[in-house]
Amino acid sequence: MYDFAASVFPLNRSLTGEGNRETLRRINAEIAESGRQFTVHEIPSGTKVFDWTVPKEWELREAYIENAAGERILDMRDNNLHVLGYSVAVDRVVPLAELKQYIYTQEDNPEVIPYVTSYYKERCGFCMAKRQLDALPDGDYHMYIDADFKDGSLTMGELLIPATEAADAGEIVFSSYICHPSMANNECSGPALMTALVRHVAALPDRRYAYRFLLYPETIGAITYLSTHLEHLQKRMKAGFVLSCVGDTRAYSCTQSKYADTLSDRVLSGVLRTRENVKTYRFLEDGGGSDERQYNAANVNLPMVCFCRSRYGNFPEYHTSADNMDFVSPEGFQGSFEVMCEVIEALEYNRHYRMTVAGEPQLGKRGLYPTVSKKGSYDALQPMRLLIAYADGRNDLLWISERAETPVKELVPVIESLKQHGLLEVVS
Amino acid sequence: MYDFAASVFPLNRSLTGEGNRETLRRINAEIAESGRQFTVHEIPSGTKVFDWTVPKEWELREAYIENAAGERILDMRDNNLHVLGYSVAVDRVVPLAELKQYIYTQEDNPEVIPYVTSYYKERCGFCMAKRQLDALPDGDYHMYIDADFKDGSLTMGELLIPATEAADAGEIVFSSYICHPSMANNECSGPALMTALVRHVAALPDRRYAYRFLLYPETIGAITYLSTHLEHLQKRMKAGFVLSCVGDTRAYSCTQSKYADTLSDRVLSGVLRTRENVKTYRFLEDGGGSDERQYNAANVNLPMVCFCRSRYGNFPEYHTSADNMDFVSPEGFQGSFEVMCEVIEALEYNRHYRMTVAGEPQLGKRGLYPTVSKKGSYDALQPMRLLIAYADGRNDLLWISERAETPVKELVPVIESLKQHGLLEVVS
Amino acid sequence: MYDFAASVFPLNRSLTGEGNRETLRRINAEIAESGRQFTVHEIPSGTKVFDWTVPKEWELREAYIENAAGERILDMRDNNLHVLGYSVAVDRVVPLAELKQYIYTQEDNPEVIPYVTSYYKERCGFCMAKRQLDALPDGDYHMYIDADFKDGSLTMGELLIPATEAADAGEIVFSSYICHPSMANNECSGPALMTALVRHVAALPDRRYAYRFLLYPETIGAITYLSTHLEHLQKRMKAGFVLSCVGDTRAYSCTQSKYADTLSDRVLSGVLRTRENVKTYRFLEDGGGSDERQYNAANVNLPMVCFCRSRYGNFPEYHTSADNMDFVSPEGFQGSFEVMCEVIEALEYNRHYRMTVAGEPQLGKRGLYPTVSKKGSYDALQPMRLLIAYADGRNDLLWISERAETPVKELVPVIESLKQHGLLEVVS
Repeated sequence: MYDFAASVFPLNRSLTGEGNRETLRRINAEIAESGRQFTVHEIPSGTKVFDWTVPKEWELREAYIENAAGERILDMRDNNLHVLGYSVAVDRVVPLAELKQYIYTQEDNPEVIPYVTSYYKERCGFCMAKRQLDALPDGDYHMYIDADFKDGSLTMGELLIPATEAADAGEIVFSSYICHPSMANNECSGPALMTALVRHVAALPDRRYAYRFLLYPETIGAITYLSTHLEHLQKRMKAGFVLSCVGDTRAYSCTQSKYADTLSDRVLSGVLRTRENVKTYRFLEDGGGSDERQYNAANVNLPMVCFCRSRYGNFPEYHTSADNMDFVSPEGFQGSFEVMCEVIEALEYNRHYRMTVAGEPQLGKRGLYPTVSKKGSYDALQPMRLLIAYADGRNDLLWISERAETPVKELVPVIESLKQHGLLEVVS
Repeated sequence: MYDFAASVFPLNRSLTGEGNRETLRRINAEIAESGRQFTVHEIPSGTKVFDWTVPKEWELREAYIENAAGERILDMRDNNLHVLGYSVAVDRVVPLAELKQYIYTQEDNPEVIPYVTSYYKERCGFCMAKRQLDALPDGDYHMYIDADFKDGSLTMGELLIPATEAADAGEIVFSSYICHPSMANNECSGPALMTALVRHVAALPDRRYAYRFLLYPETIGAITYLSTHLEHLQKRMKAGFVLSCVGDTRAYSCTQSKYADTLSDRVLSGVLRTRENVKTYRFLEDGGGSDERQYNAANVNLPMVCFCRSRYGNFPEYHTSADNMDFVSPEGFQGSFEVMCEVIEALEYNRHYRMTVAGEPQLGKRGLYPTVSKKGSYDALQPMRLLIAYADGRNDLLWISERAETPVKELVPVIESLKQHGLLEVVS
Repeated sequence: MYDFAASVFPLNRSLTGEGNRETLRRINAEIAESGRQFTVHEIPSGTKVFDWTVPKEWELREAYIENAAGERILDMRDNNLHVLGYSVAVDRVVPLAELKQYIYTQEDNPEVIPYVTSYYKERCGFCMAKRQLDALPDGDYHMYIDADFKDGSLTMGELLIPATEAADAGEIVFSSYICHPSMANNECSGPALMTALVRHVAALPDRRYAYRFLLYPETIGAITYLSTHLEHLQKRMKAGFVLSCVGDTRAYSCTQSKYADTLSDRVLSGVLRTRENVKTYRFLEDGGGSDERQYNAANVNLPMVCFCRSRYGNFPEYHTSADNMDFVSPEGFQGSFEVMCEVIEALEYNRHYRMTVAGEPQLGKRGLYPTVSKKGSYDALQPMRLLIAYADGRNDLLWISERAETPVKELVPVIESLKQHGLLEVVS
């Protein structure tokens, strides 16, 4: 995952354009072995999507600033954060004072280049480390951006892995975005994790659920997708997870759905319960939200939460050039992958179970019970005991897991053992 | 409000009598400009009201104690708290030891005259500062009270300001009492606030609710009113507020309804949430309650809470001569008035709202969104974002206000703006 | 209770056998005056009970260990904990090293004999204080146990005291066990408390409920009983209490039912609310549970909680020879008895009440109210006021007791007084 993220890091993604298409091509290459491929949809500029309109496609070819001596003091080839996202073209020589009106810096950190965009109003501009800007001598500077906007399209990737049984239990949605240029955690990590999840899900021998993987630009992409799939998802989607900022190691974060009461909330909070440094954010808390906002919006109302390590907006490297490949790590990715694998296992096992016998079964005659009764003999039996007591058809497994203070992954072997002895059945 | 309270402070109110009638006359004079007037009802002594009977009318003409030298050591003209409420007449010369049996003092403060009554058992008595009593020399004293009880009536004031639309949303009730003699916070402040609220409500251009203002003696007055209006109120009353002790500045207090689950509880707690020094009392907590007790009684069950600054029974000046015009202040009244105006606004705006579009609306094209996206751009948008997300027809505005941690008064401009752009509608 | 517990302490109880029968005979003798007797049921070995089988009857005649000099270093006549429960016979001379394989000691306390059983796997063994074992010199030892297993029966005692009215409100179940040899708190205290409760219940002039008292060996006895009474209990049982470890004075403990939401939970927690050193355990928390486990098992689902002083598994003397008659005390028993009497009173009084008048009744004219109104006059009225307000037919008395922060036993005189004045009625 780390290596794949590094490989797509340099691409210049935005709401639209070639950077996005290239990212999707590399993702499909990465998952080729699984036999699954993202279908790529191109939605033409100008298409009405709910209350919005698909924007024109931005084509950025070159961008730099030169000083009076013709030296390039800034070049998008060094870092594509240097260009204001969706900047219009410019080709002017201006004195330093005027230049500064077009430069964005990070107020709270003079060393980093900030990530700034102006999607819906025409502007030109550059982003630069404050320290560099402050050091610029007076004089004339040549601002040059060669870019234009054309009727093109917005690019989305979609991959559905169906359930292994015809009468499935609905769909689980994973969504991430492809719209930020060179940032590691807040962009590349999500698609990278998704490639690993596609391989994992494709390899599962049994799937009660179908799994839908989605990649598009944040906000406008989600709105575009929802505008054509709303009815389908309202009928079929049972849980969903936006994957964003999943490559660092500082925390595990869950941003809840609008009412914090969906299957998505329950399963993710259950899996995170046993981990350390877990932060739970209420919907829209402290910084606006990622695409879970679109899924939870009024008249959409889909059960989407957002999974992060350090959450968007809540780490200092966020939306700056410091969110680079040094900030993320293989360990960070692996932790996220394990969380999502547990989420999938918990979803698949989350049934209403019922014991087939009245009262407690005699575990001893089945070799499931210590034969000598003395103090402490039974501590290891607690998960089984709790499962036996609460497998009364009234609760699902996530409820029992929470009540038993035992993660689902530790209940799974107990379920399998009880099933094998004919003691447990699924309530349909 | 402060001046009006001061003007009715000297009147000798009780369960019945001229003091109450004069208080109502002055209230009507105070609100004359509004074009609204309280209707005065006289309920004859002996009328059965639920389990109670309207008492005889108490007429107190003169009361004093003279020492052997003929000097008045106590006179009701100095302070009408000096007479035990509903005291019978007396005209006797007694030695000091016997006099003391008829004197009530405040155990925990030797400087103040306590307020004591004996409504339902015939007694005569005086109230005095303990320091004065302790200083009295031995000798004979002349106790004189000229009072009698006659078949008269209990006096109530009632004023209904109807909604501005024919199919209204029910009634909001404000109630206060006129039965305590010269006490400022625990009497005069309530009617004074009510005069300001009558003027405020009368001037509102739109009212979904009708507003009913009630003034009567505490307990027996509320019972008398309820005994003839119970069916009407059970059908029409949506929320209600007893106004008592609303003139000081030490705290804001809410005494909840019986189950703390009514619209009255929700709106008052919502408005108080952003204030400091707020105390919430459970129904009947710590001292018996005011008229919210009668509205919440079994087989009545009306949604009444009580609003105070320092709550009755919970400030040291309560029911003593220290509850005077120095204890209350214009600032205290103003704070209460603002709370009640916010309560009225919140009630009027408390609808179920729904967005007219699916998904988030594009705020940018309507000038409601920052055009440059960088860290911190969106903080000011949080109230709008939360409203947009939760305006899904499922919750009323009070719920959204609590969830958004934003008072209704700050959501009102957002609602008006979204309505103006055709993005928000009321769910009927 | 203490003396009775002491009298049955020496009997050698187990899952089955003469010790159990003799215990029941002595219990019946103890309650003879009440005119009630436990019916004794004998369930044959081999009977299928739910998923279990009634075991063979264990007959233990003699057990000792002698050293090479023929001195008895251990004898069951000294303490019947010395024999592994359900041990098979043995008659061998072995060296010390081999002897040790058959000896169980208490790891965390070298002074006490542990209580150990091997009900469902054939083993022979002895239990001994670790200090004694460590001091044994090398040499040969003669292990001797004269015991066998025969087709016998499992013994249960059952006593039903019917309600005093034909259309009763269902049944209250008390259960304890007879299966531990000489242990005081974790065995004898339960049956001893039960004898007192039988006498108490039999003497009640009015009983809305029938009371069912059950004595049987733990686990297998409860399963055996439930296997033949499940349908009856599911229809009739309204609350139930396992009585175990009720003779010490260190704490009061409640082990909740599976969902902590039954009448049993509510009434016991209500009674314990006013006591000190109360510990509440969730169902199956911290050590497996007593017979409440069987009543709460899946497909049984009966409302059983467990009442203890120091709870089984949570005191150091548990399941050792230190759980003797010095550990329990008359004060400990008396405290438990008072709790259970309050539980019974609360159950009998736990109705939905409603005031017969609208609004608050005029308490003064009935002598129920202070005639002088001054600060503090009304504090003693709070329980009556709260009862009057909440006796609106919506809540039962346990709810009101919790809301009023007043134990049921203090509300009972208020209820009786209001009933006497015709102010309160039961809602059917």
